Amino acid sequence: MQTTRQWQTDAIGPLANLKIGEGRIPEVSGAMIRVRTQAVSLNFRDRLVLESGMGLPLQFPFVPASDMAGVVDAVGPEVTRFKPGDRVISTFSPDWIDGRGPGTARNPPYQTRGGFYPGVLSEHTVLSEEWFSLAPKTLDAAEASTLPCAGLTAWFALVECGKLKAGDKVVVQGTGGVALFGLQIAKAHGAEVFITSGSGEKLERASALGADHLINRHEGNWVEQLYQLTGDYGADHVLEIVGGPHLGQALKAVAVNGRISVIGVFEGFEVSAPVAPLLLKAPVVQGITVGHRRALEDMVRAVDQTGLKPAIDRRYSFEELPQALDHLYRGPFGKVVIEF
Amino acid sequence: MQTTRQWQTDAIGPLANLKIGEGRIPEVSGAMIRVRTQAVSLNFRDRLVLESGMGLPLQFPFVPASDMAGVVDAVGPEVTRFKPGDRVISTFSPDWIDGRGPGTARNPPYQTRGGFYPGVLSEHTVLSEEWFSLAPKTLDAAEASTLPCAGLTAWFALVECGKLKAGDKVVVQGTGGVALFGLQIAKAHGAEVFITSGSGEKLERASALGADHLINRHEGNWVEQLYQLTGDYGADHVLEIVGGPHLGQALKAVAVNGRISVIGVFEGFEVSAPVAPLLLKAPVVQGITVGHRRALEDMVRAVDQTGLKPAIDRRYSFEELPQALDHLYRGPFGKVVIEF
Amino acid sequence: MQTTRQWQTDAIGPLANLKIGEGRIPEVSGAMIRVRTQAVSLNFRDRLVLESGMGLPLQFPFVPASDMAGVVDAVGPEVTRFKPGDRVISTFSPDWIDGRGPGTARNPPYQTRGGFYPGVLSEHTVLSEEWFSLAPKTLDAAEASTLPCAGLTAWFALVECGKLKAGDKVVVQGTGGVALFGLQIAKAHGAEVFITSGSGEKLERASALGADHLINRHEGNWVEQLYQLTGDYGADHVLEIVGGPHLGQALKAVAVNGRISVIGVFEGFEVSAPVAPLLLKAPVVQGITVGHRRALEDMVRAVDQTGLKPAIDRRYSFEELPQALDHLYRGPFGKVVIEF
Amino acid sequence: MQTTRQWQTDAIGPLANLKIGEGRIPEVSGAMIRVRTQAVSLNFRDRLVLESGMGLPLQFPFVPASDMAGVVDAVGPEVTRFKPGDRVISTFSPDWIDGRGPGTARNPPYQTRGGFYPGVLSEHTVLSEEWFSLAPKTLDAAEASTLPCAGLTAWFALVECGKLKAGDKVVVQGTGGVALFGLQIAKAHGAEVFITSGSGEKLERASALGADHLINRHEGNWVEQLYQLTGDYGADHVLEIVGGPHLGQALKAVAVNGRISVIGVFEGFEVSAPVAPLLLKAPVVQGITVGHRRALEDMVRAVDQTGLKPAIDRRYSFEELPQALDHLYRGPFGKVVIEF
Repeated sequence: MQTTRQWQTDAIGPLANLKIGEGRIPEVSGAMIRVRTQAVSLNFRDRLVLESGMGLPLQFPFVPASDMAGVVDAVGPEVTRFKPGDRVISTFSPDWIDGRGPGTARNPPYQTRGGFYPGVLSEHTVLSEEWFSLAPKTLDAAEASTLPCAGLTAWFALVECGKLKAGDKVVVQGTGGVALFGLQIAKAHGAEVFITSGSGEKLERASALGADHLINRHEGNWVEQLYQLTGDYGADHVLEIVGGPHLGQALKAVAVNGRISVIGVFEGFEVSAPVAPLLLKAPVVQGITVGHRRALEDMVRAVDQTGLKPAIDRRYSFEELPQALDHLYRGPFGKVVIEF
Repeated sequence: MQTTRQWQTDAIGPLANLKIGEGRIPEVSGAMIRVRTQAVSLNFRDRLVLESGMGLPLQFPFVPASDMAGVVDAVGPEVTRFKPGDRVISTFSPDWIDGRGPGTARNPPYQTRGGFYPGVLSEHTVLSEEWFSLAPKTLDAAEASTLPCAGLTAWFALVECGKLKAGDKVVVQGTGGVALFGLQIAKAHGAEVFITSGSGEKLERASALGADHLINRHEGNWVEQLYQLTGDYGADHVLEIVGGPHLGQALKAVAVNGRISVIGVFEGFEVSAPVAPLLLKAPVVQGITVGHRRALEDMVRAVDQTGLKPAIDRRYSFEELPQALDHLYRGPFGKVVIEF
Repeated sequence: MQTTRQWQTDAIGPLANLKIGEGRIPEVSGAMIRVRTQAVSLNFRDRLVLESGMGLPLQFPFVPASDMAGVVDAVGPEVTRFKPGDRVISTFSPDWIDGRGPGTARNPPYQTRGGFYPGVLSEHTVLSEEWFSLAPKTLDAAEASTLPCAGLTAWFALVECGKLKAGDKVVVQGTGGVALFGLQIAKAHGAEVFITSGSGEKLERASALGADHLINRHEGNWVEQLYQLTGDYGADHVLEIVGGPHLGQALKAVAVNGRISVIGVFEGFEVSAPVAPLLLKAPVVQGITVGHRRALEDMVRAVDQTGLKPAIDRRYSFEELPQALDHLYRGPFGKVVIEF
Repeated sequence: MQTTRQWQTDAIGPLANLKIGEGRIPEVSGAMIRVRTQAVSLNFRDRLVLESGMGLPLQFPFVPASDMAGVVDAVGPEVTRFKPGDRVISTFSPDWIDGRGPGTARNPPYQTRGGFYPGVLSEHTVLSEEWFSLAPKTLDAAEASTLPCAGLTAWFALVECGKLKAGDKVVVQGTGGVALFGLQIAKAHGAEVFITSGSGEKLERASALGADHLINRHEGNWVEQLYQLTGDYGADHVLEIVGGPHLGQALKAVAVNGRISVIGVFEGFEVSAPVAPLLLKAPVVQGITVGHRRALEDMVRAVDQTGLKPAIDRRYSFEELPQALDHLYRGPFGKVVIEF
């Protein structure tokens, strides 16, 4: 048994509980690999887990965060997918490889890193090779670490489920991590992107990433603006990231037979909407909680092929975790990443 | 110009406005066919249109109802799909032949018979051949008249969109026309059907139609009953016909990656639901407003092949329209039909 | 290390090499389960492997056959999917759980039981729990053993890939194991089945299983018979089991936008066909080699729900393996099974 | 009845039969529009129809060619989709609007312009508005005229049927019109393109259009080159344009669960291939003959959004039709177009 330096907490509640400690990792055996962490990408969910537990059966000391990139530095004798030196990224739901998701109607699947399973904020981990994918060749570790949750969520919504194609009209709500991945993935497929935000400055930054139309939510009803920009056609895809009563607006915005992907933090939220457009336009409304490893591998191929570079608002050092977590509440433009 | 006997009204409002009058029909020319009506199937929507207009641009005198079966008795020189003597049924949305639906995000498609277009409660109509499909060989006219709206809605939800297969678990809410078609279509595909109702007597009648599991809504939480019957798996398909806040129950009932088809009368209604199961189970929620003609033709083939007989609660004569419309408010078990 | 009685051979070639011997099985540990075999279903491929090796890297002594049903009699400490007493069936391609198949363009996947992996003709096996599925509750062991290869092939072609629905027209070629499963699965979904055979007697037996139309290949061109039976429409699905130049006939038979599933023994065979119908009707032609475990689990649900009983031509005892293998060359009606 | 100048022939056979003559066009009425032709794009098929008739029931004098772009200069009173001044393109199969294709198994659909229906090489036409789509705003008439057949064929194969996505590996065979559209459409979706040709000079021109990998068929087995370039993965999509025995190579090249779209001139051709990779890799092989109008409209949106410019090898004047038809036999790089 070896040890590794890690961020950990003994109780849910104030972030002040967090401290740097020492974890234990097993010897590498069987189909396990040891990975040296290089970067961890933070999600808003990580704060919610730390502060409320989100009803999850956390094990203490609890290591937070779900998404990392690193390098394989040892492999067990039964490992077939990796070799030492391979650059890898974690998977958000390690048990979901492809196809139908795990879990039942009563007990929906939510067995993820940094929640049900221990998180990634440690310098080394030893885990089954099945829990990792190869990192893109064209990204550095910080960029690669943003793919497992934020990147895959947008990809799963638009590509795996949504079969996005060139010429499609895509509404992206806001400029957080999933939203900007949605923007970039849509552009990589030749789609037309309408991005909404309450900040003119963020809209300008989104324009630099390729957004075709900037819709300032403070300058009139955004759905009306979309109607005018599209000759009433609406949007083939809506990435509905805001949650809550906003679903009604998304249903107005969506084109006939279009698709709304509902994404977001869900603790305690309700969706509500008038039912008429849901019936008359027959859109698909689908909740998305990340996706499976096969789709992550598809996305990695796409990132390398298209040169997509994830938008990182700021990089922090390992010791700056508290500052990085604070950044999450200030509405980052894209992702916040810890570099080891 | 010929005349035809028809039910008509000069104003929306009380049903007392309805009276039998005389309509005018054009000569048969071009690609038009003349059809002698044999039966008209009523939908709850027909009362709403008569009483409120539903915001539709009705033309007066207005002839109500959308679904009929009849016999072709004359064809224009350019007609290619029918010949005199053919038994036909109407299509609910005459402009939607196949594939993507008409309309825009701002102006959703709702150009149907018995609303935007004149209804079917007349003894003869002369219309484009494109507005009709062949009736099933194995149904009488009253049975056939139930397919264009109630039948196709259930078929479109479960088969065209839902890709229902043998062994799937299907929840059907209630025992109205769409619900019973859902039950019968699901059974014709080898699925397992769970039907909910507040009436033990109706549940028994549903059992006779093939329902596998009868869930009385007055005998405890129906979702819990479903969990216990399925070992927590839940339902692959939920036909959510009730509307409103019930969507939250459907989201609890649905299996991981399952499908909820939202069907119903929508004037003034909201849907609302907790967002957690929508995200965690990633189900598809899709509104359904009937479907296209190609799917209706598929369903006609299926009806003839499987021997499915639509459930008609009661048949009325042409003169009994008022009584038949009253029956709609009493919660018929299946369909209410007018025979000519 | 324990021992188990098994059929084995030390070399490919004449079946006379086969003898009953003793194999060694490891202790149950980790995620492994020990299964007591109750029945093994034979496939024509099993003879080809024994006689030619089919180019596979067999390990000697080689235990033949791929499909079995049995009972779990011990489980390792990490096992989560099974408990002692569970009735299980094997999976044909143990590495393929769901979604995209394994392998590469250069090295297509063919890592199956009774070939690349050891076969199932032993009284006990100790293997990962991932290599098994629960057996249907409604089948005995002999019936259940026919699902992993023959049953799943037909299901994968018609249901998983083909999205079969009620009213579809399905052509099934011949009366072997896959063909009869195709017939029964199609009937369970409300489809219309056209079965072809050169034997009037076999056609009569197929009629008893539900075939709607019997087409004797010796009584004129079967495609012409299909045209006449369907008013020129053709077949939505063709299960093309014969192979070789027959694909041209299947392309004539298939409906516009229909589907041909190519199934069969392939060693040394070519397909050839005139290209005009392939282009003009734009059918999908898809080769099928069995399928993944998730689809097998779907099929098990369907078998239990619909009461489908696999057609077994004859049951042999463990000692009668040679006679059972001979039966494969005589064109069995459905499956040949060894009972332990 | 008005007249229009047109290319026409009185008999199939030598191209010398072609001459400029005068055709008659009806008055504009009903849902008809009059279109002034600006450009006609030629396809290899046009020569085959002129020389052999391809078994089609041509009406003489026969006007050849299927694809045009022009301007609406008059509309009938029932026209709703166009107004004078609109720039339009023709549709290849006027009867196929969306969804399932027309025709039967016995009589496959082949009712296209420039064959069953009169062609487009006339200065004006008067036809139903249903036979046209809006042209892209970003293309000139010559460019727009290449979409209805060559452009839509590649789009239908890769996008409508193939659900192409970023990162997919696409093999395009040759540098003809469909092939180069395949290349450009694939690049517009972020895919990785491997193009094969026997001409180094054409490969260089393809590189300028964005091809990622150039494979010279004269420099060793192209499948082996593909294996090496992809680490044995193979191709997710193969545009198989060559026809004949080459299908066997495409089956070797295709990835597990990949897709081969068979496209081409088919008169008298056979496809043949070893069946093993068809079974083991379970690819979809689908013939493609152009596509429906809805997909053409999708493609028009995509062209305007992505700035795709069709590759035109040479533009000819109306009088130069014979020279333009000769060009077709010399293997043009992309399209050959007649400008009016």
